Amino acid sequence: MAFYVAIENRDVDAMMDVWSGSDDVVCIHPGAPRLEGREIIHDSWQQIFESGESLRFRLTDLRCLREDRLSVHTVREEIEVDGELVDIMLTTNIYAYTDEGWHLILHHASAEPDFEDGEGDTFDSLDDSQPDGPITLH
Amino acid sequence: MAFYVAIENRDVDAMMDVWSGSDDVVCIHPGAPRLEGREIIHDSWQQIFESGESLRFRLTDLRCLREDRLSVHTVREEIEVDGELVDIMLTTNIYAYTDEGWHLILHHASAEPDFEDGEGDTFDSLDDSQPDGPITLH
Repeated sequence: MAFYVAIENRDVDAMMDVWSGSDDVVCIHPGAPRLEGREIIHDSWQQIFESGESLRFRLTDLRCLREDRLSVHTVREEIEVDGELVDIMLTTNIYAYTDEGWHLILHHASAEPDFEDGEGDTFDSLDDSQPDGPITLH
Repeated sequence: MAFYVAIENRDVDAMMDVWSGSDDVVCIHPGAPRLEGREIIHDSWQQIFESGESLRFRLTDLRCLREDRLSVHTVREEIEVDGELVDIMLTTNIYAYTDEGWHLILHHASAEPDFEDGEGDTFDSLDDSQPDGPITLH
């Protein structure tokens, strides 16, 4: 959970401590291109934190699968700004174990439907994993 | 690559052979809710294949990280319909090894920016991993 603490504290150093020291790291922010390597990932978090927005995360539906030196977490992030729910993200976080402990090697976040257009929606449909509309691959 | 062959062939049985036999599987189609368990994932692919659209995939920027019994693949999917590029997805696929070989346990796909609104964009900005606009978490 150090990952989410770092976001809530807008602490880029703490965030980069969460990530693997290797340059073999991948970060996909919601609706953004795939970022590879520590430097560009660092810069992306710095930019996000400099926006000054104070975000709070409520994590639900956490699923973990650990196999030896890799651990896969999937989670729903309910994101609040000033106490108001502003968005819900579906996220995959993958951690690798090295001599220096567990570190993040991949973060992939994308918006859950029904919430992409902002506030005003209810949670009714989000609690139901049955898709509302037709699913397509593009 | 059996995963993409199954999509191109619209073969739901072949697709489900790619997935783990365990019910501990997660599928996030682009812009769709998180689906958990083989049955709902099967139904989602069946629905996609029944749409009748003939999709072709060109995979680029494939990165693999394998650790013992887990293998993490990240890839860009350039999706063509009738020879025309219609969308680009950023995808994370995670495979687990069991006595029955390697099987998919997680598929997480989300649209790459600049292509969400359809055709007509150029690839110039997509070849550059530096984000064009401000990145936010929601």
